Amino acid sequence: MRSDDHSATIDVPHVESKAVIKGKASLLPAAAAVAARPVGGWKKGVAIFDFVFRVSAMVAAVAAAAAMGTSDQTLPFFTQFFQFEASYDDLPTFQFFVIAMAIVASYVLLSLPLSIVTIVRRFAAGPRILLLFLDTVALTLTTAAGASGAAIVYLAHNGNQSTNWLAICQQFGDFCQKVSGAVVGSFIAAVLILFLVALSAMALRRV
Amino acid sequence: MRSDDHSATIDVPHVESKAVIKGKASLLPAAAAVAARPVGGWKKGVAIFDFVFRVSAMVAAVAAAAAMGTSDQTLPFFTQFFQFEASYDDLPTFQFFVIAMAIVASYVLLSLPLSIVTIVRRFAAGPRILLLFLDTVALTLTTAAGASGAAIVYLAHNGNQSTNWLAICQQFGDFCQKVSGAVVGSFIAAVLILFLVALSAMALRRV
Repeated sequence: MRSDDHSATIDVPHVESKAVIKGKASLLPAAAAVAARPVGGWKKGVAIFDFVFRVSAMVAAVAAAAAMGTSDQTLPFFTQFFQFEASYDDLPTFQFFVIAMAIVASYVLLSLPLSIVTIVRRFAAGPRILLLFLDTVALTLTTAAGASGAAIVYLAHNGNQSTNWLAICQQFGDFCQKVSGAVVGSFIAAVLILFLVALSAMALRRV
Repeated sequence: MRSDDHSATIDVPHVESKAVIKGKASLLPAAAAVAARPVGGWKKGVAIFDFVFRVSAMVAAVAAAAAMGTSDQTLPFFTQFFQFEASYDDLPTFQFFVIAMAIVASYVLLSLPLSIVTIVRRFAAGPRILLLFLDTVALTLTTAAGASGAAIVYLAHNGNQSTNWLAICQQFGDFCQKVSGAVVGSFIAAVLILFLVALSAMALRRV
């Protein structure tokens, strides 16, 4: 129990004595109440921002996974033997991208209840540390998916002369656009999760 | 000032009254002193681990940047017009890798003094939150470098039939080995920085 929680009930004798035993009794309850109000409001604001950012990150991750997963283009001409088709599962990196973004989106969805807990119980440090650590792992996964996807997309757009890898975007323009959009979505999700980590760190501060 | 800091001087009147004004006076100084000792030791241990992990991460980042930066292979045969040579600066992703790992290594080096501050002043929340946030950004950069490098290294090793990108590692075996080593180094650095973030989160806990 914190000193600002019982400042309103400081006149009830047994609450006072319990607080004294914990060694945190406020002997100036009025001053403590004045100081406690902005602290609590600030923490609650952080927790609500946390929830909003979390929902946005989930939307961005789902959009990125969906855009990549539905990227598929068939060229309108074909030879006797095969048709020219590009799909995300031609490239292992893009498969990893879809799986990673799906995992991140699921995690963020599952973390929403925990985020609500931090809104309701705004002084609980346990859920916040858990969220901070899991958010960092999710950030790593999102960044890995986005960066590896970006490396391949760059190659698809520009090719590489030294290694003789040709740009495929000249043929598969629509495919490349969709894939690039997915990569942008994953970077938006990464930035939002980075904000989440920063918010958790701020909220953990002992004020 | 925390309640356990002035528990030894609780009998000096003006210190007592100053603490009372701040609303955190411990009325059971002996109990507070007993409780404070293990907490402090635990926090100091975390801070020392933080320093050790930080030095290891710096070594890993420097090794990754150096391995990538010195990767260069010239094949022992050549045509009339050009010699076959592979170097990290043939691929923009590998250039980004070197720059990113150099930035991470510099940041970790510059963060060492701040880490020492957290060993000495183990209850200071400010330096820890700053370190936590900057570590998260460094983690993102390391992961991005490692993941994009891994995507290109995978392509160099295995090629891709759908896009007609051929595996270059059959010709440039030594180059590929060195580049793969650099990517592994960056992942080791990323794991160490992830540990740093977890340690900072644990240390921020209000005990």
